[in-house]
Amino acid sequence: MAKLWGGRFSKNTNELVDAFNASINYDKRLYQEDIRGSIAHAKMLVKCGIIPEADGTKIVAGLQDILKDIEAGNFEFSVALEDIHMNVEARLTERIGDAGARLHTARSRNDQVALDMHMYMKRQIVEVAELLLEFEKVILSVAKQHDKTLMPGYTHLQRAQPITFAHHLLAYFNMLQRDFRRLLGVWEDADIMPLGAGAIAGTTFPIDRFFVAEQLNFKNVYANSMDAVSDRDYVLDFLSFASVLMMHMSRLSEELCLWSSTEFGFVELDDAFATGSSMMPQKKNPDISELVRGKTGRVYGELMAMLTTLKGLPLTYNKDLQEDKEGLFDAIDTVKFTLQVYRDMIATMTVNTDRMRWAVSHDFSNATDLADYLVRKGLPFRKAHAVVGQCVAYAIKEHKFLLDMTLDEYKQFCELFEPDLMEALDPEHCVNARVSYGGPSYVENDKQLEKGEAILKEQEETLKALREKI
Amino acid sequence: MAKLWGGRFSKNTNELVDAFNASINYDKRLYQEDIRGSIAHAKMLVKCGIIPEADGTKIVAGLQDILKDIEAGNFEFSVALEDIHMNVEARLTERIGDAGARLHTARSRNDQVALDMHMYMKRQIVEVAELLLEFEKVILSVAKQHDKTLMPGYTHLQRAQPITFAHHLLAYFNMLQRDFRRLLGVWEDADIMPLGAGAIAGTTFPIDRFFVAEQLNFKNVYANSMDAVSDRDYVLDFLSFASVLMMHMSRLSEELCLWSSTEFGFVELDDAFATGSSMMPQKKNPDISELVRGKTGRVYGELMAMLTTLKGLPLTYNKDLQEDKEGLFDAIDTVKFTLQVYRDMIATMTVNTDRMRWAVSHDFSNATDLADYLVRKGLPFRKAHAVVGQCVAYAIKEHKFLLDMTLDEYKQFCELFEPDLMEALDPEHCVNARVSYGGPSYVENDKQLEKGEAILKEQEETLKALREKI
Amino acid sequence: MAKLWGGRFSKNTNELVDAFNASINYDKRLYQEDIRGSIAHAKMLVKCGIIPEADGTKIVAGLQDILKDIEAGNFEFSVALEDIHMNVEARLTERIGDAGARLHTARSRNDQVALDMHMYMKRQIVEVAELLLEFEKVILSVAKQHDKTLMPGYTHLQRAQPITFAHHLLAYFNMLQRDFRRLLGVWEDADIMPLGAGAIAGTTFPIDRFFVAEQLNFKNVYANSMDAVSDRDYVLDFLSFASVLMMHMSRLSEELCLWSSTEFGFVELDDAFATGSSMMPQKKNPDISELVRGKTGRVYGELMAMLTTLKGLPLTYNKDLQEDKEGLFDAIDTVKFTLQVYRDMIATMTVNTDRMRWAVSHDFSNATDLADYLVRKGLPFRKAHAVVGQCVAYAIKEHKFLLDMTLDEYKQFCELFEPDLMEALDPEHCVNARVSYGGPSYVENDKQLEKGEAILKEQEETLKALREKI
Amino acid sequence: MAKLWGGRFSKNTNELVDAFNASINYDKRLYQEDIRGSIAHAKMLVKCGIIPEADGTKIVAGLQDILKDIEAGNFEFSVALEDIHMNVEARLTERIGDAGARLHTARSRNDQVALDMHMYMKRQIVEVAELLLEFEKVILSVAKQHDKTLMPGYTHLQRAQPITFAHHLLAYFNMLQRDFRRLLGVWEDADIMPLGAGAIAGTTFPIDRFFVAEQLNFKNVYANSMDAVSDRDYVLDFLSFASVLMMHMSRLSEELCLWSSTEFGFVELDDAFATGSSMMPQKKNPDISELVRGKTGRVYGELMAMLTTLKGLPLTYNKDLQEDKEGLFDAIDTVKFTLQVYRDMIATMTVNTDRMRWAVSHDFSNATDLADYLVRKGLPFRKAHAVVGQCVAYAIKEHKFLLDMTLDEYKQFCELFEPDLMEALDPEHCVNARVSYGGPSYVENDKQLEKGEAILKEQEETLKALREKI
Repeated sequence: MAKLWGGRFSKNTNELVDAFNASINYDKRLYQEDIRGSIAHAKMLVKCGIIPEADGTKIVAGLQDILKDIEAGNFEFSVALEDIHMNVEARLTERIGDAGARLHTARSRNDQVALDMHMYMKRQIVEVAELLLEFEKVILSVAKQHDKTLMPGYTHLQRAQPITFAHHLLAYFNMLQRDFRRLLGVWEDADIMPLGAGAIAGTTFPIDRFFVAEQLNFKNVYANSMDAVSDRDYVLDFLSFASVLMMHMSRLSEELCLWSSTEFGFVELDDAFATGSSMMPQKKNPDISELVRGKTGRVYGELMAMLTTLKGLPLTYNKDLQEDKEGLFDAIDTVKFTLQVYRDMIATMTVNTDRMRWAVSHDFSNATDLADYLVRKGLPFRKAHAVVGQCVAYAIKEHKFLLDMTLDEYKQFCELFEPDLMEALDPEHCVNARVSYGGPSYVENDKQLEKGEAILKEQEETLKALREKI
Repeated sequence: MAKLWGGRFSKNTNELVDAFNASINYDKRLYQEDIRGSIAHAKMLVKCGIIPEADGTKIVAGLQDILKDIEAGNFEFSVALEDIHMNVEARLTERIGDAGARLHTARSRNDQVALDMHMYMKRQIVEVAELLLEFEKVILSVAKQHDKTLMPGYTHLQRAQPITFAHHLLAYFNMLQRDFRRLLGVWEDADIMPLGAGAIAGTTFPIDRFFVAEQLNFKNVYANSMDAVSDRDYVLDFLSFASVLMMHMSRLSEELCLWSSTEFGFVELDDAFATGSSMMPQKKNPDISELVRGKTGRVYGELMAMLTTLKGLPLTYNKDLQEDKEGLFDAIDTVKFTLQVYRDMIATMTVNTDRMRWAVSHDFSNATDLADYLVRKGLPFRKAHAVVGQCVAYAIKEHKFLLDMTLDEYKQFCELFEPDLMEALDPEHCVNARVSYGGPSYVENDKQLEKGEAILKEQEETLKALREKI
Repeated sequence: MAKLWGGRFSKNTNELVDAFNASINYDKRLYQEDIRGSIAHAKMLVKCGIIPEADGTKIVAGLQDILKDIEAGNFEFSVALEDIHMNVEARLTERIGDAGARLHTARSRNDQVALDMHMYMKRQIVEVAELLLEFEKVILSVAKQHDKTLMPGYTHLQRAQPITFAHHLLAYFNMLQRDFRRLLGVWEDADIMPLGAGAIAGTTFPIDRFFVAEQLNFKNVYANSMDAVSDRDYVLDFLSFASVLMMHMSRLSEELCLWSSTEFGFVELDDAFATGSSMMPQKKNPDISELVRGKTGRVYGELMAMLTTLKGLPLTYNKDLQEDKEGLFDAIDTVKFTLQVYRDMIATMTVNTDRMRWAVSHDFSNATDLADYLVRKGLPFRKAHAVVGQCVAYAIKEHKFLLDMTLDEYKQFCELFEPDLMEALDPEHCVNARVSYGGPSYVENDKQLEKGEAILKEQEETLKALREKI
Repeated sequence: MAKLWGGRFSKNTNELVDAFNASINYDKRLYQEDIRGSIAHAKMLVKCGIIPEADGTKIVAGLQDILKDIEAGNFEFSVALEDIHMNVEARLTERIGDAGARLHTARSRNDQVALDMHMYMKRQIVEVAELLLEFEKVILSVAKQHDKTLMPGYTHLQRAQPITFAHHLLAYFNMLQRDFRRLLGVWEDADIMPLGAGAIAGTTFPIDRFFVAEQLNFKNVYANSMDAVSDRDYVLDFLSFASVLMMHMSRLSEELCLWSSTEFGFVELDDAFATGSSMMPQKKNPDISELVRGKTGRVYGELMAMLTTLKGLPLTYNKDLQEDKEGLFDAIDTVKFTLQVYRDMIATMTVNTDRMRWAVSHDFSNATDLADYLVRKGLPFRKAHAVVGQCVAYAIKEHKFLLDMTLDEYKQFCELFEPDLMEALDPEHCVNARVSYGGPSYVENDKQLEKGEAILKEQEETLKALREKI
């Protein structure tokens, strides 16, 4: 098939090259943006007197027909036409003749694909933000249900200090808030309009780039045409956001795997969110958590791929940049899938509150409280720490926990111990004594849950505003 | 040496473990932040009645002495004391006794190191921003000197359309502006105060975290103690910023290597910024550009390292997190070094304007202008493109450039050509016809240079405000 | 649809989970291996008396029918059946009843998928090796055609010393030999038979794993069942191989981009292997080279993804391991495509020998020869280097090359210069004086070309042997 | 300080450039190789009549003196002299005059540094292999001690089937064997001698590269001078090896963290290999395991860094290649440290065999054995799997394990159950019924332990041979 750019060439393109070069198999995903962008471009060409109004009308109608055809599944994409841009334009000219051949006036595929990608990115940011918000709501709601569910808190996967399950979940809630903020940062870099940059140096036609930006709800316009066609920062921004989000999800996934184990037994996933084994009849596996943890690697890889691809490229457009799509699209799909399925999985899982409670009552996670007790009795902290260390070593040897030791036993190690020490050791007391801001006490926790609601409302408002700008 | 945490242990730590575990060799870089943070903590303990005022006074004085000793080089760091925190605290207690042993009340190394890192990050953001700004100034100033220096613009490393050297440099100026904005995003995540989170679950002492935040100029306080000690998002944010910046620098570096080659010959680096060969006497190599391009890999690697390290970690603190430092420190050093040396290298390089001018007059980069010419004569763009494609093929065969062909030769391909076509082909005319916003025409370019000044002023203001918050 | 593993479950799987979990969309690529593996397994079960011979016969026939159906496009894959294994087994049982339900005796999907992957890897290694060999042949053949084509050799992208185009291409030939050797290393790790490892701990049935290995041409059998189902080293090995190969290809691609530029003008790609611009009629872009350079990032990313996914996984099988496929499959496709298209592109490109010759006659790449000349006259090398450095500085100032300077001019810098110096400066002489092993002289070059033929013959033999073991 | 290459330069190098450019701070690690290589080069120059024998003698003596000085700490390295090569050469010439200035005849730093790196790589491969072997020995020896220690085997971190601790450790033993083999693969790429390649194109002096290779115990000589100075494949090979090894170590580390938790309680690290908390007196943290898991990221990052740095570099030497050192050196240190400390930590840890035994007697990991039991009674596997799935669901509801259910209860689900089913359910029986090759039965395990000894002996032999070639 003759190429639209083939004027100076004397041979057809090698078929292997066509297949290697073509992006239509994945960039057809941009059809909606491509057509919307072309309509805005055509209207601008008319407004600026660059093409006749009649041609503009034909173009717009023709493009709308193509859009309908694509959405109805009546459009055959051609690999020889390389990409979504050429597929749409070739069909348009087939249908409306010379008017179609005028559409590409004052633009190049370099700025056209950049426009499509920016528009697509903005739409995807909104869709991801919606799912993020839904997941945050589920986290907050499960936290509320467990505002008094005691469990051991871990450092180094060793029991450290008693906390509540709500407190634990709120840690993730805070991570997700940063993810939300980071996503808004991606929007900043995406919300710049590139069309009119041409292939590299703008155009000699009297175009109006701000008119295009206005039609397509862009806040900014690229101030340098070479930058406009070379820039893929917004792709990297999204992949960085996605990598950090997936990192957070991988941490939660790891915990769900741990908690679902026989050894921990803290949660049980709903049957609808677990799978079995083809060989072992007893198995109930937290596959989703494992998959999400595993898919973190995929998203990291996509970030690394794009960084590598961009490294050392001279300005401006180079074909290497075509590699900006598949990784990004896959990262978007992965993130959306992850947020959706976690939303439903977390909402339906069973929390074994008894098991958690039992665990926190059978460990040494109250040892810090004993040290603090001694500090309040006047011992410098470092000395109190040493005394309690000895108590713990003694208890382990005697196969006891701290609550099982007698006052006499304690007095062996320090004279400051009094009968009131037992209260300090009760897990519920340990939690509620931690009233410092951001701590696990019930009262502080309630404040954070309330603050959480307010944050979600704010995010909702932000999102509503963004939705109108895509 | 006895460990400050050794109460429950019955054996000394293995020496290899000490060496492997210890972070003092690199985290001593945080000494200033560690001491400032401890002073703020001590003052808070006094204010909240947790330690006696007299102890607080001794602690503050003792810490200030240690600070002086370190800065004077009179402090011996000990590997057995593991890290900067224990080195400082152990020395303090050695000097002031029990008061020193009270300093660690209501905190853990988990929140202490997080505090140090946040403070250090904020200081480094300001220092990097300063260098970024200086480099932007140099770019803008060299662009101004070359506002009428014509050169070929490239896509696919093939000559595409005529531009100016100023226009080319302004593309980088725009990238650096995004980098600046991205750096401010890192600040957002860094400007959260973690102290008071304790090891994982806050503390039973009646602390005031907002008082600490105020003393140390933090805007926010972590709202969840578990998040506070687990979070390394700000490290990832910086590494993402640094990766994108280095990617931009690698593209500029690649261009400097190309431009310094015999084949291009567009620039010559100052002798002070180039090196020779131990074997080949004629060589003058753009080593700095190559090194910066190469060091891009290093920074990418550091981002990937940190992402990998964090993947799948259960909450909260795990020793894996100690790996957050070396890569970050190296990335900071690399970025600062790169910006400094590029600032001076770009400011001193010679631009071979004649060579650039010659190049743009001996190529086909004016072909689009010829197509646009035909469009203005009424031909649809796609057809004009095809006609000019044939003209170019003909010219190559005849060993001519477009300006060398006669009107008769042109008329072979299209009747619409008229004598005025020659004007359209002059490179200076080509550039100046591109008056679209963000295009290379002198007049548009001047506007962007002016806008650049305003942007720099704004960044200066922003930076000034940040400087007061470190 | 009821799951084959669903005995202990009381609910159906969530649909989103099905979609997220299912691997059938990409692992159907393994259908041939899955069926061959199942046939071997069934035969072994019969041989060991674990299932009746009649059942074995039915199974084998049933599987062969399914194979035919798949290859004829008459097989509908079901997402609810998750993967290729369950799709095949469910269909088999549908068709042959109880005999089909006996096929999975003594195996698990954990060892089954490992078997499929090992078999697939071995087949792909052979296919990639074939393409690698074909590309090596093209490189060697083009090198032979240019055994006397002089050109500048570069270090730091600065002209360094004269070489031949053959010598330059032979550098790549040597890299590709290492790639070939590395690919054989991947074979070592792939050629281990996992079936019989069961889910994790083998099986209680009296199986014969060596019989299966023999049927399927495996050299080794996994010696530990837990390792067998957890190991993905061979996937990493392939991705490492592919990354290094793509790195080599990216270097060649960079050079092709440079050489195709107006500035270098050393090669011109055939029209069938280049593309044009939608806006600029004169453009002929080396898209393939840029794409291959860009796709290097993709393969690196796939390596990084797999490394990340495997990091920190406890033994044995975890669902994370399902992420081993898509990246590997894509890397295989990318590498194969790259080798194929480069083979044809390099074979058809035009080498501008005149332009290369002109370049090497108009530069200072003969300066080392001048220093060597002085050394032969008795000057220590370091001093000779300094003298020639001054000569070059002088020549640049006078706008001359070394061959343009008179003997008198030379004598200003050193008395040892004699009339015979001019011979030393001739590029052809410079090349031919470099007779050291591996150097560019025509005579040494011829030896290497001959050696190259022998190497290719050897690789051919190796490959022939491998082909019989897939 | 005047540069040895400064002849054509009219200005001194900028100080910042010196600092940025210089590699002496890290490449001084190569001093031994640099001097050994220079001695071999000098002897060759004498042998080939390129320099006078007297000069050769002075050079060798001078270099040996410098070696002694460096090892005695009496050598001051200079940053202005950039690297180890120039530091040594400058000092030599200072001491022995003109003879020293002749040392660099017929070589360049490009081939010199390549030689140093190859020699260093070979030495490090041997040192790493030694540590790897020592660690393998410890693994095998601990496995032997626990050849009858029953424990649950896990898939998806869910208890799957009973195994022994020996069987579990042997999985790692098998991974380490592959690592050993992979390390030998690195040797292949390292064992090629680059000297004589000069800067890019060999030399005009009549050198004998094979004589140098023989002196320095190299098996091969680079067959192409351009490849010799550009090749860093061996660095990538090592980093790939190190990444896979660290991946294996990260999996073991994860398991040690799990096993050290209160929930699992399977092992207790020796006090000398664990650390405490500055705040929580009870803590005993498996810091080493966490650090090793964390450092996996660092090594991955170093691989990614080097891959990125090499991407798209034109031939031959570019300064980017200087980035080959720091990451490699750090990876070597990390791997060596990891192997050393793990060797001692695993050898000294306590295995809680009772706890493991208890665990395996209180779970459903014998369910597959029940299904196999039914298969032996004639039920097709898929049906047996379904029946046992129902038994497990029933048992969970009744809070029983399979051994606790009565025959009557079993008969509810299938008539084939007989009194002998209880034997099939005993964990020890489950393990010992798995006699398939590579399975966990005591008898098969013993064979593998024996085979392990033989493998270690073989590796010992291999290593002994390598040791003589460094």
